[in-house]
Amino acid sequence: MKLIIGNKKYSSWSFRPWIAMRVKGIAFEEELIPFDFAAGNPAIRAATPAGKVPVLVDGDLAVWESLAILEYLAERFPEVGLLPEDIAARARARSMAHEMHGGFGALRSECPMNMAREVRPIAVSDGVRRDVARIEQLWSEALSASGGPFLFGEFSNVDAMFAPVVNRLEIYALSTHEAVARYSAAMKALPAWAEWAAAGRAEPWIVEQDEA
Amino acid sequence: MKLIIGNKKYSSWSFRPWIAMRVKGIAFEEELIPFDFAAGNPAIRAATPAGKVPVLVDGDLAVWESLAILEYLAERFPEVGLLPEDIAARARARSMAHEMHGGFGALRSECPMNMAREVRPIAVSDGVRRDVARIEQLWSEALSASGGPFLFGEFSNVDAMFAPVVNRLEIYALSTHEAVARYSAAMKALPAWAEWAAAGRAEPWIVEQDEA
Repeated sequence: MKLIIGNKKYSSWSFRPWIAMRVKGIAFEEELIPFDFAAGNPAIRAATPAGKVPVLVDGDLAVWESLAILEYLAERFPEVGLLPEDIAARARARSMAHEMHGGFGALRSECPMNMAREVRPIAVSDGVRRDVARIEQLWSEALSASGGPFLFGEFSNVDAMFAPVVNRLEIYALSTHEAVARYSAAMKALPAWAEWAAAGRAEPWIVEQDEA
Repeated sequence: MKLIIGNKKYSSWSFRPWIAMRVKGIAFEEELIPFDFAAGNPAIRAATPAGKVPVLVDGDLAVWESLAILEYLAERFPEVGLLPEDIAARARARSMAHEMHGGFGALRSECPMNMAREVRPIAVSDGVRRDVARIEQLWSEALSASGGPFLFGEFSNVDAMFAPVVNRLEIYALSTHEAVARYSAAMKALPAWAEWAAAGRAEPWIVEQDEA
């Protein structure tokens, strides 16, 4: 299996399947294609069906879209627990994961993931504040119901979907909610997190539009 | 089971789980809460976990986000065939469904679904033209691989995800691609399509921002 990804410093969509595979011990080789906004990413277009990273290549099959990759991994490796066992918990986890996929537009556009940025607050819109409040609500409800340390107990796909949000809330100092602190500590204690973050910090490429 | 939806004339997200349930003969009651942009949709906020439609209520469980509802239905009713049987086909179907969920922003913002609108071209941006070209590519590849009449043979969740796009391509006259014509004819021949469209046309509410 090969996972084609973008910059570890910035590519939040790539981080999602990557951290899930590492946490669950799914073996894969990695191909990193650095963003090239000036050239319009011809290398990514040539290597991927939708012209976007990430893509998981498994033999003849190319799976694109982070959450579709995570669903495929859950089917391909049912023993590793990428989805909660209970059908109702799976439904709630997927509702949250899909809300993340399609929503939180203000947070995503104003506060890019950045693995090399120091913690420093920035001025944000009301939209970001609403996004953060909704995330605090989702995380605290899920952690209360499951008991943690991850949203549905053990690490699962929905945690992978929210991993970049853990970085955003931290580096822009967006939340002082207790559940956010507790959950972020659990996520950042994962060896996979440290591995990705160190690689991101070591990258030489700077993308101006992701430096908020 | 109860499905809470918005206006049938305009609510593309509501249309997706609704048509899947009708096509597959899954019994449900329906609660329609008309959009009220002036008041900020207090009725929808009160009735739904994320303040958005659609929501599927199944006993104590409330599932939100169209694609999460469709995944839940596929698990709850495995016998009706909401997902392709082959794991690779399921992966491709999910990649397409998730690309629809998170993408095609130009098409979605400039060309709203509208079940009561006559066919009439409008001026569109290059972004819409790129979105349409990508949709033509996705549909023609999937139909060639499956043989049709739906994207993966029989009607499945990915068809539900693209149902509002069938309406958009038609009413704004955006495509003359043969695969689009063939696929649109199959979708519009579904009795469920006719039932939804007739109800949408009969609604008294006009939402100015969805009248392009």
